[in-house]
Amino acid sequence: MVMISEPVEAQIDAAFDRHLERVRAFVRQPSISGEGVGMEAMAEMVRDAIRGLGGSAEIVPTPGWPVVSGAIDAGRPKTLLLYGMYDVQPVEGEEWLVSPFAGETVDLPEIGPSLVARGVYNTKGPLAGLINVLETIQATDGRLPVNVKFVVEGEEELGSRHLPWFIQAHRDRLGADATYFPFYCQDRHGKPHLWLGVKGIQYFEVRCRGGAWGGPRTRGVHGSNAVWIGNPVWRLIKALATMMDEDEQIQVEGLGDGAVPQAEDAELLARLARTFDPVTELWNWDADRFKYDLRADALLRRYVNDPTLNIDGIWGGYTGPGTKTLLPHEVRVKMDVRLAPDMEPERVRERIVAHLRRIDRGDLEVEFEEGYPPARTSVHEPVVQALVRSFRSLGREPEIWPTIAGSAPFYLFRRVLGQPFASGGLGHGGRPHSPNEYATLEGMRLFERSVARFLYEFAGAGS
Amino acid sequence: MVMISEPVEAQIDAAFDRHLERVRAFVRQPSISGEGVGMEAMAEMVRDAIRGLGGSAEIVPTPGWPVVSGAIDAGRPKTLLLYGMYDVQPVEGEEWLVSPFAGETVDLPEIGPSLVARGVYNTKGPLAGLINVLETIQATDGRLPVNVKFVVEGEEELGSRHLPWFIQAHRDRLGADATYFPFYCQDRHGKPHLWLGVKGIQYFEVRCRGGAWGGPRTRGVHGSNAVWIGNPVWRLIKALATMMDEDEQIQVEGLGDGAVPQAEDAELLARLARTFDPVTELWNWDADRFKYDLRADALLRRYVNDPTLNIDGIWGGYTGPGTKTLLPHEVRVKMDVRLAPDMEPERVRERIVAHLRRIDRGDLEVEFEEGYPPARTSVHEPVVQALVRSFRSLGREPEIWPTIAGSAPFYLFRRVLGQPFASGGLGHGGRPHSPNEYATLEGMRLFERSVARFLYEFAGAGS
Repeated sequence: MVMISEPVEAQIDAAFDRHLERVRAFVRQPSISGEGVGMEAMAEMVRDAIRGLGGSAEIVPTPGWPVVSGAIDAGRPKTLLLYGMYDVQPVEGEEWLVSPFAGETVDLPEIGPSLVARGVYNTKGPLAGLINVLETIQATDGRLPVNVKFVVEGEEELGSRHLPWFIQAHRDRLGADATYFPFYCQDRHGKPHLWLGVKGIQYFEVRCRGGAWGGPRTRGVHGSNAVWIGNPVWRLIKALATMMDEDEQIQVEGLGDGAVPQAEDAELLARLARTFDPVTELWNWDADRFKYDLRADALLRRYVNDPTLNIDGIWGGYTGPGTKTLLPHEVRVKMDVRLAPDMEPERVRERIVAHLRRIDRGDLEVEFEEGYPPARTSVHEPVVQALVRSFRSLGREPEIWPTIAGSAPFYLFRRVLGQPFASGGLGHGGRPHSPNEYATLEGMRLFERSVARFLYEFAGAGS
Repeated sequence: MVMISEPVEAQIDAAFDRHLERVRAFVRQPSISGEGVGMEAMAEMVRDAIRGLGGSAEIVPTPGWPVVSGAIDAGRPKTLLLYGMYDVQPVEGEEWLVSPFAGETVDLPEIGPSLVARGVYNTKGPLAGLINVLETIQATDGRLPVNVKFVVEGEEELGSRHLPWFIQAHRDRLGADATYFPFYCQDRHGKPHLWLGVKGIQYFEVRCRGGAWGGPRTRGVHGSNAVWIGNPVWRLIKALATMMDEDEQIQVEGLGDGAVPQAEDAELLARLARTFDPVTELWNWDADRFKYDLRADALLRRYVNDPTLNIDGIWGGYTGPGTKTLLPHEVRVKMDVRLAPDMEPERVRERIVAHLRRIDRGDLEVEFEEGYPPARTSVHEPVVQALVRSFRSLGREPEIWPTIAGSAPFYLFRRVLGQPFASGGLGHGGRPHSPNEYATLEGMRLFERSVARFLYEFAGAGS
């Protein structure tokens, strides 16, 4: 028996065109944390939306971008902490079908009518949809089935640099029964993916510059000098080559130390392997094949338990048109490690430093950006089960993944606030961090219905 | 007994401010062949300057940028083919003290008053200076001591792509006793470097893109997918790492095949090692040390005889601000090989292809830009000896280098037209292909005097 408010769902369908306008308004406001574009205006838009629901809301400064914090006390026994983000990735260097901040509808081949915009999937679309749902419930049923609190950060795409500070400083007023992160979680065939965990991340940059070891110190010089002067790019390439083998197996000793498969995963992975759809996953990520020729169960074990060492970008020397010859003075590479449970960022940093120290010949520098550990909730937690039932009641059996490959700072909710968490809702989108990020119109409507069901279901669930 | 025209040299000194204005005019006109900026206007400026000397001159189209071709028949027994270039390197991504196309004077620390501009050293400054000299001789002595022909190309910085075509097509009217390339050849302490040869070059680009082997095919995807999808950047790094060892010794089998030390070099190198100034060379190239810890004679042998494999630039993935996580779909590297005598570009291309084929796993592409072989003139050629005497007569003993590390398509003059060649004149400049390229004002004046002496000396030299 699933708890449904039929008037709420009827109203979601009836008012959907208006609801879509809120999503458009959210994505039309650029909010690129990495470039400092539009952040204040976006924070105000989120704050005003919460106030529009009758909640308290404020923009709380941090040493970086502020957190929008708020609460709606519905006088209910249960409280849900709603976590979200109002920042998005840059679009620099990307080619789009439409302007990434126009909020335009495109009928995408194989996908259908969709909003194509930076952040529509990751994750201003779901955030706007959640607000639509709360507004609809209030207008239709009078009050929310649960009390809600909001933590909407502006630095998720920067590795949530100051969220730890915010959560620590405000932990007294962030108490709740669980945390929920809204997200479109159906693949393009409609199957919902339900993730019980997120990986941690440690972002860093490695540089090689000319210096006491040799190489040009402050400027690129004529390329013919390669005959007798060292090239920082060759130095970095030789250094990077020691970190990975030909089959992309990590060669940094102990990088994965602390990674421990979770007890309930054996059963979860066995079940997941039966419904896992490799063709759709490869389509999602624009690839012809996986890195490993493995059966589904073995591949998924690696997906869940392996650390990664990725190169996000590399650049140095002359990269323009034509054929300039240059001996560059500097080359830089952006890298990130994804942490599986129960890896710790401190240990990862130590291992990277130890590796670089071992191979360094006075030519390498490393700078770490903030990192955070992974987080995990058991499949048996009431908040997870409420989400599962909300999907099933709409005819969608979720495919349960022990973790997503991506990262979010849910350790703050799990470890610091002691709350189980769940994330997702029906709906479909794709191409996060890529050109032509999208979410389907039909999926956005379904998302709102599924979130409404989840809220009622969680309100009624035993804890 | 050196041939000097005192009226000419007095007039060079007297009119030097006006002469400088021609240099300024040349560098103020951008002419970036790699970007197609200002090329037509620059070609016209050179053509008009030759016509201003009473010569015939025309802009000869090629499939790329045109060649400015001209001649002045002074009714003399000897003819000198004047080779020059009117194109310059891009300035994209560089930071300059002054606008690179303003032709401004800067009093550079440790250097003195200089024009700081793209092309002032490499090589529109010397080209303008040469025209000043010819004009002064005509105005003072009535006619030139030698007939001259001009070949001024617009693709030197692109590897002289169509100069072979031009020289072949027009070889009948390019006959001369020798080729001369004007250049400022003093180091910052005043010592002239006289190069008997130039290296060849083979420029190329290597790419790794997602494809049948794996990796994202058409767009970067979320970096978390590194857990199961291959990264083209790692692939390229592992491939490049096979081409070079930790000490920057080339690992491409047979790349240097054909390199043969020239017979007269043993004696030339022994003499060069006695005056070679490593401190100034390192200062020129902004480096603290050479790639090798070798004595001067051994270092110079490598400088002259070693092939090089340089990385000019590398780029792929996210290179903007902040910490975007991305699994890139493509990475590219620009590289060049410098060819020592008697290496051939065809052989170099074969060796690179063979190496890449050996290590390729369906993930590498290579594209060759045009290349050309090295060229060399004996120190005993009259044109070289005329240049040596012109320096000595101005109190400067030249340091003779068997070859410069850089490249120029002099094989066309040597092999196709059968002419010995010489290059250089007094004068000092630096930072070619770099920000704040410069030439000193005092050096430019000295350049004109030395070129005047060279022309008279060559006219009188036995051949």
